[in-house]
Amino acid sequence: MNDTLKIIADHRSSRSYTEEPVDDALLDELIATCQRAPTSGNTQHVSLMVIKDPAKRAKIAELAGGQPWIARAPVFMVILVDHYKTAQAMEIAGRPHVIQEHIEGTISAVTDAGILLGQLMIAGQALGLGIVPIGAVRNHADAMIDLLELPPNVFPVVGLCLGHIKNPAHQRPRLPLETFRFNERYGTPDLKPAIKAYDEALLAHWKRVGRDDGEAWSKAIVHYSDHNYRPALMASLLRQGFRFDKG
Amino acid sequence: MNDTLKIIADHRSSRSYTEEPVDDALLDELIATCQRAPTSGNTQHVSLMVIKDPAKRAKIAELAGGQPWIARAPVFMVILVDHYKTAQAMEIAGRPHVIQEHIEGTISAVTDAGILLGQLMIAGQALGLGIVPIGAVRNHADAMIDLLELPPNVFPVVGLCLGHIKNPAHQRPRLPLETFRFNERYGTPDLKPAIKAYDEALLAHWKRVGRDDGEAWSKAIVHYSDHNYRPALMASLLRQGFRFDKG
Repeated sequence: MNDTLKIIADHRSSRSYTEEPVDDALLDELIATCQRAPTSGNTQHVSLMVIKDPAKRAKIAELAGGQPWIARAPVFMVILVDHYKTAQAMEIAGRPHVIQEHIEGTISAVTDAGILLGQLMIAGQALGLGIVPIGAVRNHADAMIDLLELPPNVFPVVGLCLGHIKNPAHQRPRLPLETFRFNERYGTPDLKPAIKAYDEALLAHWKRVGRDDGEAWSKAIVHYSDHNYRPALMASLLRQGFRFDKG
Repeated sequence: MNDTLKIIADHRSSRSYTEEPVDDALLDELIATCQRAPTSGNTQHVSLMVIKDPAKRAKIAELAGGQPWIARAPVFMVILVDHYKTAQAMEIAGRPHVIQEHIEGTISAVTDAGILLGQLMIAGQALGLGIVPIGAVRNHADAMIDLLELPPNVFPVVGLCLGHIKNPAHQRPRLPLETFRFNERYGTPDLKPAIKAYDEALLAHWKRVGRDDGEAWSKAIVHYSDHNYRPALMASLLRQGFRFDKG
């Protein structure tokens, strides 16, 4: 297998880090490389916040609902949707900047934030670092915005821990391919047999790795649905200038 | 430089393809590998539509506002936000599925669609293929939904052309790093000098590659803002069951 594909295939979330810092030159290379990640129409409406300050990382670990690896990883990044930057370009033209008031502005920039994160994770792992993506920067988005002093039209989408791996993590199985790959059309297939087969595979995996609290996927989805609404998220987005009341 | 970082650093959108098809085994490997891309809370709420049918690709090229490379590339993929799959898991539990009615459901799944796209692009390029991401699958999202027979709670976020490169594309410069990387805090910096420097660099690039229609970045942002609202997008999202009126 191609070396790069091996890195992608070997993805795992590493939540355990040594005390070793991430070398500055390595971090610079990682960031400069991933600035090449494409964006919709070359808008480049994403930015990267690099956080090394231990007090800030400790605070973020707490805001994320108690995720100690955020405090332990020497580097934490936050991927930002950034319409402040594009608004400055509109200012040069003397025009108001309104794309963040349309759902397209959010969908497009959040997609690009994901692209950037996807490439940062591969690049980080290619450089031998451990990574774990952190959606919980959206738990208390208002507090994150204040902590990072984000200007209007900027929003923290997702975080990423980076550090040298202490204990390698296990890799979880994925849903059967038939629930992921569709050819030419989707329709309304009954995916429940595949989901049930995956429930079994995942439970067997949890048993194998000694995780007593491991759940079947269909149960985990119920828990996700019950606890991950992040009901305060809309208010934080509105505060930053994003709108969802028109096309 | 690390080989994988070289691939990321060398990113370019290739819009010109030879007649050579993409080998099925190669495509299978690409897709199986990228199914490893992480998703929020292991929800796996993204799917991949693979389109080889020339008539479908021609139709999509047209819906995307006339992008002939979609018809010419032997494979076109559409990355789907997929809450149909997770709704089937909720059905096993006998519970209603409502995450798509909360902004978190959209932000989280669109981020994961971006992660998947980011990794597909690197993997595709690592396998020697040319790629170009296509946000314009959202131009006429209703027609895309009908064409791909997408069920409720599924939405086409972004597309990707894949094929063997005929004429290598040029690589555009990026905005100065100071508009992309922030350390510890953002504030309200004046980014206009950096943007103006980039305008010059981009115009010099267009001149160098003989593109008479090339614009300064700050001008392109105005055009993007004027023409890329995709005002019909909200209605298409609502039609599929997504909601934006609560937290």
